[in-house]
Amino acid sequence: MTASAPSTALLTDHYELTMVEAALRSGAASRECVFEVFARRLPEGRRYGVVAGTGRLLDAIESFRFSDQEIDHLRRTTVVDDTTLEFLASYRFQGDIWGYAEGECYFPYSPVLVVESDFAHGVILETLVLSILNHDSAVASAASRMTSAAGDRPCIEMGSRRTHEEAAVAAARAAYIAGFATTSNLEAGRRYGVPTAGTAAHAFTLLHDDEREAFAAQVEALGKGTTLLVDTYDVASAVRTAVEIAGPQLGAVRLDSGDLLSQAREVRALLNDLGNQDTRIVVTSDLDEYAIAGLAAGPVDLYGVGTSLVTGSGAPTAGMVYKLVARTDDSGTMVSVAKKSKDKQSVGGRKYALRRLNAKGCAEAEVIGLGETPADDGDDRPLLVPLVRDGEVVGRESCTIEAARARHEASRAELPAAAHRLQRGEPAVPTLFEDNLP
Amino acid sequence: MTASAPSTALLTDHYELTMVEAALRSGAASRECVFEVFARRLPEGRRYGVVAGTGRLLDAIESFRFSDQEIDHLRRTTVVDDTTLEFLASYRFQGDIWGYAEGECYFPYSPVLVVESDFAHGVILETLVLSILNHDSAVASAASRMTSAAGDRPCIEMGSRRTHEEAAVAAARAAYIAGFATTSNLEAGRRYGVPTAGTAAHAFTLLHDDEREAFAAQVEALGKGTTLLVDTYDVASAVRTAVEIAGPQLGAVRLDSGDLLSQAREVRALLNDLGNQDTRIVVTSDLDEYAIAGLAAGPVDLYGVGTSLVTGSGAPTAGMVYKLVARTDDSGTMVSVAKKSKDKQSVGGRKYALRRLNAKGCAEAEVIGLGETPADDGDDRPLLVPLVRDGEVVGRESCTIEAARARHEASRAELPAAAHRLQRGEPAVPTLFEDNLP
Repeated sequence: MTASAPSTALLTDHYELTMVEAALRSGAASRECVFEVFARRLPEGRRYGVVAGTGRLLDAIESFRFSDQEIDHLRRTTVVDDTTLEFLASYRFQGDIWGYAEGECYFPYSPVLVVESDFAHGVILETLVLSILNHDSAVASAASRMTSAAGDRPCIEMGSRRTHEEAAVAAARAAYIAGFATTSNLEAGRRYGVPTAGTAAHAFTLLHDDEREAFAAQVEALGKGTTLLVDTYDVASAVRTAVEIAGPQLGAVRLDSGDLLSQAREVRALLNDLGNQDTRIVVTSDLDEYAIAGLAAGPVDLYGVGTSLVTGSGAPTAGMVYKLVARTDDSGTMVSVAKKSKDKQSVGGRKYALRRLNAKGCAEAEVIGLGETPADDGDDRPLLVPLVRDGEVVGRESCTIEAARARHEASRAELPAAAHRLQRGEPAVPTLFEDNLP
Repeated sequence: MTASAPSTALLTDHYELTMVEAALRSGAASRECVFEVFARRLPEGRRYGVVAGTGRLLDAIESFRFSDQEIDHLRRTTVVDDTTLEFLASYRFQGDIWGYAEGECYFPYSPVLVVESDFAHGVILETLVLSILNHDSAVASAASRMTSAAGDRPCIEMGSRRTHEEAAVAAARAAYIAGFATTSNLEAGRRYGVPTAGTAAHAFTLLHDDEREAFAAQVEALGKGTTLLVDTYDVASAVRTAVEIAGPQLGAVRLDSGDLLSQAREVRALLNDLGNQDTRIVVTSDLDEYAIAGLAAGPVDLYGVGTSLVTGSGAPTAGMVYKLVARTDDSGTMVSVAKKSKDKQSVGGRKYALRRLNAKGCAEAEVIGLGETPADDGDDRPLLVPLVRDGEVVGRESCTIEAARARHEASRAELPAAAHRLQRGEPAVPTLFEDNLP
């Protein structure tokens, strides 16, 4: 992150700053604290979740600085008092952050991020941490089900137009981590190196006097390997025209409406009749993981997914929360804390987390215990990796987009077979709390 | 918008640029075109939608420029050829844009935005236009139902942590347009002037040795008018402590868990017993429009809404599309065009739109016709206002956040009573196509 990256400090709830003000006044601001990010449950019926956004979060934390512009705004709008403004002006996160490596699967109560610092330095990151992890994890969790349902067939992310323009860039990144092959989003290509792809819309066909002219124009510009959209008027007639123009080298045809399964079969038969065995069939049109699975038996080569991907396929936010689980008392002793609110209890204490694996390397449980990771953990895989130490980012390599993509593939492969069922059910492995937890 | 605003040009689907390349090659790029943004349907059961994002869109279009950085990226990744790069390097939208004024209600097939320019200049805006309008309109449409259900009681937007960090800022803006009183999001305060508010979380109580100490610290810092969160341990005991500390001037107490209706009644009775008739009750905890309506009979003074607001209460995207509806032919004559794809037909031609009002000023229909708005439109209210003319933004005043908020209130008030029912049903007024449409 360069020094000129825009400040992320005001992407924050008002009450984080008023809490800092009140804690500075009471003196409790300097108590050492442990904050934990976790989800009490997965979206209904889901078997696992996917942690995503960690790499973006590390950049965002480095840019979490209150420059003169931010301080002036807060002073003018009297959000907090002068003492607090002074604290904010010199704010720089100086604690430690641990977390599940990006791309890792998670389950209910998995401590996906652990922030250790004094109260004032830690509480203030709550909104930004949750915005990034909740959004990106929701998209990655949905995306993983789609790529799982698609098997060896590539999935193309094309949902930018169905979500906020910046959320679209993050969604393309999260989808790639969860196994999507490409995105339509050019900024995701520039910012994160996600491969981009795309061909033409109905507008391009309608722009020309007829379909033949449009196809010829596209093939001339983009080559015979391009994908021609064949459902603007009549599909069979469009396929014949496409083959006449591009010949056997025609890359692909795209179907974007109607009954995709029966149309794909008809188009496959027609293409084969015309000698275009190598021309692929791309399907798009409100696909989700269920529609993808429903097309598994059809002659489909690529899936384009938009709306369902960027909206988390029914679960647009991951429901993660950021909770104080431990803090020092006046004597400096660390004390576990937890609220008792009805239906929203939390579990106090700094936790460790392990993925328990059987002899075949298959995940059997998410094990959560209090304190340090046990030294002798056998086949269990420790899940918390260092991300920030004394305010310095140390975990960036673990959450590059390629590392996260590889990790997700490995983490998902480790789950029991039930994880890959689309129908609603319980989490693929149980979350076990060790005896030392309250 | 200052010259230094970041470029929005790559917040765009790859295929918009390859279509420009192919159309430049075929010569069709210079055909004059009309693109229309509309939704084929409202989210299931909704009675009306709310147009939002127009003001943001005008800024984004002004920043839609391909500087050296964008061109270099596109050249390096060979997205398009050199002729197209030259076109992009000098790109500046030079056409006209009309649209529903921000805050206006819309219905199926309402032409909420009309873009008139040559093909290349118009098609390229598709992704950005849809990202902004689909996201912001989805949030505003949900928000309007919430403020309608809340009646005179203020709604507080507090969903930043449940959505992408930049989407959160846009969501706060959209919610304010649809009648929310305040937001928790500080950046929405700075960027758009939305009033911000907030007090404390459970972490603040848990940080202190006991609830009394936490409440005292908060009241000392933020004054007796603050809102104390009373459900960390035992609600009744917390209310007593709060009143002991702040006295009759205590501003409000907040309930964030459990059965909010019965708890609000108990807390109201207790506050009154203690002499705190003026202390208000704020409720939060996964509220949506139905929960708000369910609390109407309870002694609740303010509603805080998070997740449901930023995720569009079940409809996180508005489903608007950007379609070519007319273009010139070789003779320069404007021709209506429409695709015939199964279940995705569109209606060709440049449209006008009117809200038909009866003698009492109540909306009776959304009237859509072909061509110019009829001169004698009686009580009908024309809906398309000029936003951009010859590339210059002319509609900014119509979509300031305050103008949009006032317009939404007026537009919603004009709808028939059925519009305000929360249960699923048909759109509040029918969409009528005039006879001149195909």
